Amino acid sequence: MILNKIGNIIKQNNDFAIVSHLLPDGDAIGSTLGLYNFLNEIGKEVDAYNPDKLPLKFDFLPGFSDVKNTLIDKHYDCIFVLDCSDKERLGHLVELLNKADVVVNIDHHISNDLFADVNYVDTNAGAVGEIIYNLIRINGFEISQKTAMCLYTSIVTDTGGFKYSNTTSMTLNIAGDLINTGIDFPEINRILFDTLTVQQVKLLSKVTSTLELYKDNSIAVIYVTKDMLEECGANENDASEMVNYARDIDTVEVGVFIKEVEKGKYRVSLRSKNKIDVRMIAEKFNGGGHIRAAGCTVFGDLDEVKNKVLNEILNHWK
Amino acid sequence: MILNKIGNIIKQNNDFAIVSHLLPDGDAIGSTLGLYNFLNEIGKEVDAYNPDKLPLKFDFLPGFSDVKNTLIDKHYDCIFVLDCSDKERLGHLVELLNKADVVVNIDHHISNDLFADVNYVDTNAGAVGEIIYNLIRINGFEISQKTAMCLYTSIVTDTGGFKYSNTTSMTLNIAGDLINTGIDFPEINRILFDTLTVQQVKLLSKVTSTLELYKDNSIAVIYVTKDMLEECGANENDASEMVNYARDIDTVEVGVFIKEVEKGKYRVSLRSKNKIDVRMIAEKFNGGGHIRAAGCTVFGDLDEVKNKVLNEILNHWK
Repeated sequence: MILNKIGNIIKQNNDFAIVSHLLPDGDAIGSTLGLYNFLNEIGKEVDAYNPDKLPLKFDFLPGFSDVKNTLIDKHYDCIFVLDCSDKERLGHLVELLNKADVVVNIDHHISNDLFADVNYVDTNAGAVGEIIYNLIRINGFEISQKTAMCLYTSIVTDTGGFKYSNTTSMTLNIAGDLINTGIDFPEINRILFDTLTVQQVKLLSKVTSTLELYKDNSIAVIYVTKDMLEECGANENDASEMVNYARDIDTVEVGVFIKEVEKGKYRVSLRSKNKIDVRMIAEKFNGGGHIRAAGCTVFGDLDEVKNKVLNEILNHWK
Repeated sequence: MILNKIGNIIKQNNDFAIVSHLLPDGDAIGSTLGLYNFLNEIGKEVDAYNPDKLPLKFDFLPGFSDVKNTLIDKHYDCIFVLDCSDKERLGHLVELLNKADVVVNIDHHISNDLFADVNYVDTNAGAVGEIIYNLIRINGFEISQKTAMCLYTSIVTDTGGFKYSNTTSMTLNIAGDLINTGIDFPEINRILFDTLTVQQVKLLSKVTSTLELYKDNSIAVIYVTKDMLEECGANENDASEMVNYARDIDTVEVGVFIKEVEKGKYRVSLRSKNKIDVRMIAEKFNGGGHIRAAGCTVFGDLDEVKNKVLNEILNHWK
């Protein structure tokens, strides 16, 4: 079994590097730091890397500040690439792949192109953190609280708090074993899911005040302008999840969030629940995405953009 | 073991009633309907009761519309009382207890006063739904999708989506087994946690616009007046969770939500994170609660109420 083979690589070597993808999310960071803490604890030399700056939200994770952004001059016995469907996801750190005797690719994306010497892609795993858990356990090791904090974070973020369809009974069993280490998982959840900045609350108030409803309240449109961001001292990231306030309305089938990029240029996020294929709507504006979540860039003033998008949604109504 | 004894009562009898507490929450409704569906499926006669109207949010649960609010003229072999620490929680349905040969009390509150003929109180259970799961499994029965939907709802609501400290590895293992029945748990989570009404979004905008911060952004105050509710077509329940928008701000230690009850009378909700005992503050105004969540009624106009509460918080600052 490949996880045993990877376990043997760990047991037989000493110098490791770990890297994950650009724009790292909770799974990239949590699985990287989970493996990093584990390898440290069993006495290995290990460097953790990421091609981007890590979001500060994750700074409670053990080892957070050890993660390097630039290559150090070192040759590794083995490098782990986590949560990357291909090596382009490593950005400028792709060079790392030439600095190790063995490259191990651990991922859960079906699109993984098996770029490494050893590849383990488990598309049934809700998060790469689940695979790291199995790797540690199957090879007879224990999981410390530090490692558990990181792997729990990986799993709980990539499964949307165990709400998404990628959650399996294995996901939940693993999470149960991780909380049995005694980690403060309510606090981890609070940090990950229930934390707002003052700027976000102010922005939330302004953005939700723009709510407009169409077609018997089945289409909801909200927007944010650059002026609104400025008035709240907020940035674009603060607005990133606000499309949910349009989509989550009980009567709504399509939620639309329009964000001013610059004068005359707007980024439009589209979400649907059951019927409308919003990817087809986004494609009309040269955008893309998935059936239930898509995006596109539309030009014009705010009212023009709103009308263009609304008309296209109404054209696709079944 | 008591769960086997209760299993034998189920196997040896035919006519059952199930009841839970006033102001039913997800655990009351989910555990009632979980047991109701199970008993139906194994061929028993069963009536489900609740002393209050069930929130419509739960109308997706199988058996929802079968739940009775008034006693029918019938004698039962056995009545199950779920999630009730004492029989006063049954309101006008307390009479049911006189209409059965055996009363079985299944609960997870440490305060349970063991009022029944057979009492099973598992204070380690995150939800009564966990106990119903164990009752079914330990006695050798299968769990259908219908029953699983109800028990999953019970567990996921009472543990705050597996975020609260009452979540254990057993909770997560049970949830894993329930989702293995093939229930659409992402949709259940969407209904339970990610659904807003138009009125709630409008109210959210108004309430968050009242945000005031004190003591270096460590105290956040928001409020709602009866006029604001009316302008949004909203009711008091629509405002029930809004204190979270004050508490969840990253810099905040104490979040305050002030709700106008009538002219000159305000209900104040207090939440804290790590330091301040908000129960002590609430008690100054003859209120009560817990260290991290408390409430009280304060008289005066809005500014007076705000100042009284703020001064009391500042008095308790450590």
